[in-house]
Amino acid sequence: MSETDRPLVTAFEWVPPFARGLVRDLRVRWALEEIGAPYDTELLNARTPRPDEYLARQPFDQVPAFRDGELDLFETGAILLYLGERDERLLPAHGQARWTAIGWLFSALNSVEPVVTRIVTYDVFNKDKDWAAQARESATGLCGQKLKRVNDALAGKDWLAGSFSIADIAMVTVLNGLRHTELVAEYPQLAAYHQRGTERPAYKRALDAQMADFVADPT
Amino acid sequence: MSETDRPLVTAFEWVPPFARGLVRDLRVRWALEEIGAPYDTELLNARTPRPDEYLARQPFDQVPAFRDGELDLFETGAILLYLGERDERLLPAHGQARWTAIGWLFSALNSVEPVVTRIVTYDVFNKDKDWAAQARESATGLCGQKLKRVNDALAGKDWLAGSFSIADIAMVTVLNGLRHTELVAEYPQLAAYHQRGTERPAYKRALDAQMADFVADPT
Repeated sequence: MSETDRPLVTAFEWVPPFARGLVRDLRVRWALEEIGAPYDTELLNARTPRPDEYLARQPFDQVPAFRDGELDLFETGAILLYLGERDERLLPAHGQARWTAIGWLFSALNSVEPVVTRIVTYDVFNKDKDWAAQARESATGLCGQKLKRVNDALAGKDWLAGSFSIADIAMVTVLNGLRHTELVAEYPQLAAYHQRGTERPAYKRALDAQMADFVADPT
Repeated sequence: MSETDRPLVTAFEWVPPFARGLVRDLRVRWALEEIGAPYDTELLNARTPRPDEYLARQPFDQVPAFRDGELDLFETGAILLYLGERDERLLPAHGQARWTAIGWLFSALNSVEPVVTRIVTYDVFNKDKDWAAQARESATGLCGQKLKRVNDALAGKDWLAGSFSIADIAMVTVLNGLRHTELVAEYPQLAAYHQRGTERPAYKRALDAQMADFVADPT
């Protein structure tokens, strides 16, 4: 339980270098930084299962879980939506603009992230396996198709739903998963969009805060 | 443009047998059937790219797209949320119950569906490839972990968020992707939950309606 009135975000106290900047509490920190909302963090051990009680807050035993007063939330998409409903700087309150942003929020998490995760699975977690190179080739074609669609949708726009929104927090952090590749660079509008996102001061503050919380001695 | 006041759902006029019952307009049809809301369908050709204009409605050139009056929506998660906000039979209006359901909605689409899709990719689209069997073995372990988490979360509950909601429409239809396997059957609470979902009269009406719309001659 947070001892303050500030929202509470769970995060890890240590992760290996390849995962730094990719852990999903970054999305929630970024949204909170965009609206200038202070928050507390509860740091968990990534190398051992969390206590059983944690499953009641995050059924997949992952981070982040989020607590705001009496409310407990899980899944970054849900937490972003919750914050978006509280501040129009994160999500238009009404009409087509709201639903376009929510459509792109789900796109980032359901149409784009799954194939990005496949690339990471093959390149990082199975890089020593013969089959991974062939599986990767198959996934790369599909990934390119998805990235091209997002690239094309960005024609004439700085942000997916017109103005900056939670959809961009989701999409930019999803694209971070490809940082070990040149896949995003093949699509100029998409690459410029990704850079535009990561250059926002709120993004930088959120990333710095995640990095600063990796305080545990890994040995 | 729909010529009626009814919402409009896009669907395919023909898909191969392995995809019947899995096309995602099923989710939207099911939600509409749960609240007794009549709708129109616009049937598209799955075998050729859709007209360029369609990308403005569905940026990934998929089905369903959804139109309700002046509003255009895409992504089944967003469409389910939209319908849920209009009817408490699909989503509690306030408080913890609302956010628990929304958390599970995102879980279905972002924590469970990606690994289900990997299994389908290996088993269906790459079944003749040597690498797919090894990739499948790796994914099956991860899929089992996710299914176990959902199974455990269902202890003492008929539905993910207590009462039936859009989260169940998403999760049950995601689990349909594993119908060619025995993976769900390994988790008794999950298997009973899946059966409970597919036995709902609204589900059956939605599935019948999707099947009835596969009217085109594939030759």
